[in-house]
Amino acid sequence: MSAHIAPFPQVDHQRAVFADGLALDCGMTIAPMAVAYRTYGTLNAARSNAVLVCHALTGDQYVAEPHPLTGKPGWWETILGPGKPLDTDRYFLICANVLGGCMGSTGPREEMTDSAGRGLGRPWGTDFPSITIRDMVRAQKRLVDHLGISRLLAVVGGSMGGMQALEWAATFPGSVFAAAPIATAAHHSAQNIAFNEVGRAAIQSDPAWKAGRYWEEGRVPAQGLSVARMVAHITYLSEQALTRKFGRRLRGASALTFLEDVFEVESYLRHQGSTFVRRFDANSYLTITRAMDYFDLAQEHGGDLAAAFRGTRTRFFVASFSSDWLFPTTESRALVRALNAAAANVSFVEIESDKGHDAFLLEEPVFHRALGGFLAGCADRLGV
Amino acid sequence: MSAHIAPFPQVDHQRAVFADGLALDCGMTIAPMAVAYRTYGTLNAARSNAVLVCHALTGDQYVAEPHPLTGKPGWWETILGPGKPLDTDRYFLICANVLGGCMGSTGPREEMTDSAGRGLGRPWGTDFPSITIRDMVRAQKRLVDHLGISRLLAVVGGSMGGMQALEWAATFPGSVFAAAPIATAAHHSAQNIAFNEVGRAAIQSDPAWKAGRYWEEGRVPAQGLSVARMVAHITYLSEQALTRKFGRRLRGASALTFLEDVFEVESYLRHQGSTFVRRFDANSYLTITRAMDYFDLAQEHGGDLAAAFRGTRTRFFVASFSSDWLFPTTESRALVRALNAAAANVSFVEIESDKGHDAFLLEEPVFHRALGGFLAGCADRLGV
Repeated sequence: MSAHIAPFPQVDHQRAVFADGLALDCGMTIAPMAVAYRTYGTLNAARSNAVLVCHALTGDQYVAEPHPLTGKPGWWETILGPGKPLDTDRYFLICANVLGGCMGSTGPREEMTDSAGRGLGRPWGTDFPSITIRDMVRAQKRLVDHLGISRLLAVVGGSMGGMQALEWAATFPGSVFAAAPIATAAHHSAQNIAFNEVGRAAIQSDPAWKAGRYWEEGRVPAQGLSVARMVAHITYLSEQALTRKFGRRLRGASALTFLEDVFEVESYLRHQGSTFVRRFDANSYLTITRAMDYFDLAQEHGGDLAAAFRGTRTRFFVASFSSDWLFPTTESRALVRALNAAAANVSFVEIESDKGHDAFLLEEPVFHRALGGFLAGCADRLGV
Repeated sequence: MSAHIAPFPQVDHQRAVFADGLALDCGMTIAPMAVAYRTYGTLNAARSNAVLVCHALTGDQYVAEPHPLTGKPGWWETILGPGKPLDTDRYFLICANVLGGCMGSTGPREEMTDSAGRGLGRPWGTDFPSITIRDMVRAQKRLVDHLGISRLLAVVGGSMGGMQALEWAATFPGSVFAAAPIATAAHHSAQNIAFNEVGRAAIQSDPAWKAGRYWEEGRVPAQGLSVARMVAHITYLSEQALTRKFGRRLRGASALTFLEDVFEVESYLRHQGSTFVRRFDANSYLTITRAMDYFDLAQEHGGDLAAAFRGTRTRFFVASFSSDWLFPTTESRALVRALNAAAANVSFVEIESDKGHDAFLLEEPVFHRALGGFLAGCADRLGV
């Protein structure tokens, strides 16, 4: 399992490896199964202060430290650290790379194994099984058990991380004192599926993708993955944020051309695309976007979203952002209605922000105070 | 100019050819210049009943008859025909393929000419000059003059067609009795530029594009153009329209997979992409999207949109659709405010529709009645 295969960068991730593997929703068992993770802060003696942070589509376990491939700050340093809402002085924070990811957890980039768990000397690639958000959560549950934690103080996540927080509460209700699904929804909408499909089509259209076997020539489908990132990036921003950041500003040149990037927004997007391919695996992108598309918590419970939470004792904190059009407030409200119908303990806040979906990652003081207060209240209740 | 070059389909379009060519905003003169067009109805003796219909990004002059390449009905047969709002029994309707297009007007697919107007035996490709919406309108003006019409009863268009209607009113105010810009804006927003840029990146990433010289190998960049069409198509629909059409319905198979289209919406989008490449030229797509991105009517008038219309006697009919997020109602309202500031005669209607930007092309009885009434009122006024 530890063999990395060219052309992927070698990073020595902290991992827990489960030799018996994991039974997946698709019916297949993947073994062994590795979960790469990072922790921040200290687990208390009662093992009652653990908070699991779940990452979004292109995130990873490097929440609050420089990224090993890009050197950039952790993706949620705005909110996680000493004295911050996700307070490393008080909580023991865990973040695992999702199953299907490309930062050390078992996924398309890792070495393929046969049914006896023997390495086959090549990456999984597109032979990696289709996985679900619930599979990701089951993998995290193995890690949490492995760390000797029987109940999490909280599961917190935005976007696809929020889907995981919901799935945790629905699947392992006794293991989750509190759940904070942020900027998310109980199912992926038709429009979001459509945007994901454009990204997949872009990757699969790139001749370098080679039906997923791009490692054979040591060349990644950079163009396709870059286009996928570009279109996704637009959906993460609001029209207002794009206009504020770039408006219609031209990049110096006033000459009319259609071959070069003349608007700043174009240059920015192309940059986003080209840097993304240095850290992310195209087959992981296919795997994880598909898992998001499959996510439909109501459908997992006979078409009744409230049934997913009936009888739950988990406390919920639901937050949305007013300019988020990828996971709009209407989706959070539908979730809150179902939680209310299940007589769950739920608080909901819509944060006024013009930053779009990305707002959950950025400096949003009202959001930070609300989430920090919710967690602190839960910790007080448990005597943490 | 009439030489078509493989691999493009040969269609004998009706064209007007202007040997002296057209001076473009970029400073270059393109000569000769051809404008392919279709007309419907009969020009009256006073030549006062001509209505110019301007098409959108991927439209063409085949408004109300089967498309010569696809055999599909004309793109605006919902509204144009005998007894319809664009009434062929009363008006003489003209629609021209835009400059830069690929259905017979001078554009990247047509034979390149040198400064003396001599054919060079190869298509323009990416040597085609950058053009603007104003260049398109100037080309149309040449056609309208050629047809012996000194004043149009109206210029009507949706989306990019609406940009042309606005540009007509601003550039040739004495030649336009009425203008109906529909589902459009006085400039292209940062978000719209960003979506166009994704489409261009997809085309340019396709190795078959070959820096625009794809005709040399007789193979078009179908994959890239298809991805461009897919992402654009999402922006033409509303979330509600996508959900109503497809929801999260699976295509038969329940097996988990990420290699095939499992959701109906995916299959639909891939189909949209693959049929589009049979009728549209990739270099035209690059040229025309760039012209849309450049469009900024206020900037053409010293930063003051009202200045574009000051003193105008043209009557305006502005319409938007409530679920259109590509050209939202806020953009139409900004346009109406500028027209009011210019003391123009303007009526504005926001049509309640959940069909998104595409609504302007579809059966929308309230919209049809409003536009038909506006045109009939103008015609009555002129004694047509």
